[in-house]
Amino acid sequence: MALIVQKFGGDALGDKGKGKARSGDEPLFGAQFLHDKFAYMAQLVKKSTDRGDKVVVVVSAMGDATNRLLAMAASLTPKAPARELDMLMATGEQQSIALMAIALHSIGVPAMSLTGAQVGIITENVFGKARIREIDTNRIEKALAEGYVPVVAGFQGATADQEFTTLGRGGSDITAVALAAAIKADVCEFYKDVDGIFTTDPRVCASATKIDRISYDEMLELASLGAGVLQSRSVEFASNYKVPLHVRSFLHDNVGTYVVPEEKEMEDVVVSGVAFNRGEAKISLKSVPDQPGIAAEVFGRIGAKGIVVDMIIQNLAVDGRNDISFTVSRSDYEAAMEIARKLATDLGAGSVIGDDTIAKVSAVGVGMRSHSNVASRMFKALAENGINIQMISTSEIKVSCVIAEKDLDRAVQAIHKAFEGDRRAVVNN
Amino acid sequence: MALIVQKFGGDALGDKGKGKARSGDEPLFGAQFLHDKFAYMAQLVKKSTDRGDKVVVVVSAMGDATNRLLAMAASLTPKAPARELDMLMATGEQQSIALMAIALHSIGVPAMSLTGAQVGIITENVFGKARIREIDTNRIEKALAEGYVPVVAGFQGATADQEFTTLGRGGSDITAVALAAAIKADVCEFYKDVDGIFTTDPRVCASATKIDRISYDEMLELASLGAGVLQSRSVEFASNYKVPLHVRSFLHDNVGTYVVPEEKEMEDVVVSGVAFNRGEAKISLKSVPDQPGIAAEVFGRIGAKGIVVDMIIQNLAVDGRNDISFTVSRSDYEAAMEIARKLATDLGAGSVIGDDTIAKVSAVGVGMRSHSNVASRMFKALAENGINIQMISTSEIKVSCVIAEKDLDRAVQAIHKAFEGDRRAVVNN
Repeated sequence: MALIVQKFGGDALGDKGKGKARSGDEPLFGAQFLHDKFAYMAQLVKKSTDRGDKVVVVVSAMGDATNRLLAMAASLTPKAPARELDMLMATGEQQSIALMAIALHSIGVPAMSLTGAQVGIITENVFGKARIREIDTNRIEKALAEGYVPVVAGFQGATADQEFTTLGRGGSDITAVALAAAIKADVCEFYKDVDGIFTTDPRVCASATKIDRISYDEMLELASLGAGVLQSRSVEFASNYKVPLHVRSFLHDNVGTYVVPEEKEMEDVVVSGVAFNRGEAKISLKSVPDQPGIAAEVFGRIGAKGIVVDMIIQNLAVDGRNDISFTVSRSDYEAAMEIARKLATDLGAGSVIGDDTIAKVSAVGVGMRSHSNVASRMFKALAENGINIQMISTSEIKVSCVIAEKDLDRAVQAIHKAFEGDRRAVVNN
Repeated sequence: MALIVQKFGGDALGDKGKGKARSGDEPLFGAQFLHDKFAYMAQLVKKSTDRGDKVVVVVSAMGDATNRLLAMAASLTPKAPARELDMLMATGEQQSIALMAIALHSIGVPAMSLTGAQVGIITENVFGKARIREIDTNRIEKALAEGYVPVVAGFQGATADQEFTTLGRGGSDITAVALAAAIKADVCEFYKDVDGIFTTDPRVCASATKIDRISYDEMLELASLGAGVLQSRSVEFASNYKVPLHVRSFLHDNVGTYVVPEEKEMEDVVVSGVAFNRGEAKISLKSVPDQPGIAAEVFGRIGAKGIVVDMIIQNLAVDGRNDISFTVSRSDYEAAMEIARKLATDLGAGSVIGDDTIAKVSAVGVGMRSHSNVASRMFKALAENGINIQMISTSEIKVSCVIAEKDLDRAVQAIHKAFEGDRRAVVNN
């Protein structure tokens, strides 16, 4: 008998329009749709309770309900108070928990819906992106002891004054992990429309395989690099509290991927996964005066516009001048170029060169700590395929290269192939 | 400067589909619709705050949102737990308060949405139709003192254990009146799609006029007789706590109808209003043995099926037998007839005669207490128009007659005309 937190997100409860805001005039959820989604998820929960497990369910709002509610508010004013937006958005998850509890009840599983406030998720006094301060587990433990499956609203909490707050996008994952930590659950399961975490995107590389176990650190690198299955904040939270995560499919019973504290054997796998991001852009400021404070000025101005810079490369100075290159998300490219041109004039730098046809590919693995030749093997794989490396960045468990976007698929395949043998050798041991 | 509770109901925030459950697949609220409704109502509130009044707003769910939520639950099971239905339905009002607060904020009126639980409406531990136990006014008074317009969710409360409850259909009116009583508001305003309470339905009688002031007791008789503008429970509540109500139109600024404690002058108006109900049916049990306990048996069996009996007439016994007649809502006619036939057999009574083409017309007025000839004037008016009276029932301030439904419109016109002169004489004084 295990104590399990099961999280059902927007992809489990939603439709294909997820993430795309629809106008309020479009149809939302038909009776059949609702029945299919909630009745199906309820059966998954029942499988666990039938085995004798104690289960806590965490649900998100249905599909794009959150975007629809935001669109309602936007129809009144572009500047709605954050407090009132949280009041409005909290209804999305509240509808989900009631419907899930009803679906469970209808198949004989006693269930009790609980809002963030009811379940005792106390947050700081910030609307829209509150952080959890503490969780009072009395109510949830009482419900479990009475034989109920608590069905908890993700994404929301309340301040000590009973003001409703939300935890920011992806906050339902945080709710699940935080609850699992608070009640010391054996595992926190995430039901997704994928089989687990893969060594790379199978749509790009047919030989990609599901990873059985991966460390929090590796998962964080994969998540922030665009693998996008779990929110980075929730993985950090899990890492801090050592909550084992299990990313699995809601379509079948197979074991998915466990995200767990680092294990000795993980170091034997040199590269756990190959991550990539297509939507990048590169900007180079040529011939910048090599003076203290220049970099602070450049990235201060860019950061002030809310643009997040990813990689930064600065060459060695030549004749008191050097080149500064950096990458940004492609959606920020035009704005960043404008700032860069202004900077070049103000600082007396040379030309500004931009390229919005680049991509980033990264090899991730805790095994890099004990294997010294990972970067060179990666560069060799790219070179053998005639792919030029424009920028390089490394961390303890990651090597990232910026390349032309047109080369990306071949690069992913080449790197994946280069380290495939190692993985197979380990798995077959 | 006054302290005012302003209630906006489904007809103010809703569409024409009100009360008719639509499938979840149909479009709900478009951006323009939302803007029109909430922005318009916010302007009405602003008129009061601009005058320096302190305002508390109470809102219902939008249009038929409550029915839509119930349809969602019904798609999962016909037997959803009441607790979970309340959890689900509470989201309807919660969306309304957030949107109303946003609309007010957008025109410069500081507003703060508050759920039933947040505003301190503590109810008994019954789901679906909880009664209010007490109201903790701290939060609402703090918000008012800080210059906010509190926007309160109607229809909902919470138990002392923070379980969400709802107050039953029409519960938003109760919320408004209860809050007005708790904070000792000067008046509780109901914004409706009518100008006020009329002496009768203007669609039936063109000479119907708006009533300026009416007593709680008269309003109760009119409400329960089908005038349907205010819920009976909320009028009772107002009567108990002497809360002045003001039923007014949201389409213009004119004064509507005040519902207030009885005033001396009200007795000068013999008949305040003529109410009627088309959907009635009559059942007669002939030749029932005149024994103790028979009436209890008859109406016990009918009540056990959840059928509400309105009028009951029992004739004087002749030869140890008498006739019992009663009226029920027409929707209960078939079920009641079946019970009556079974009763006739079991009790050894005579034939059972039913008629589902009847209607009820009533004259209501506190003036009846001091004017003895009201009933006879009413009967005379009907007789002069050749309308046969089938049953009669009276209370201290009401005379009701059952007539053929086909005669109803003429009956209403005749009775209205018979007492019109009295009213005009009083108003012209």
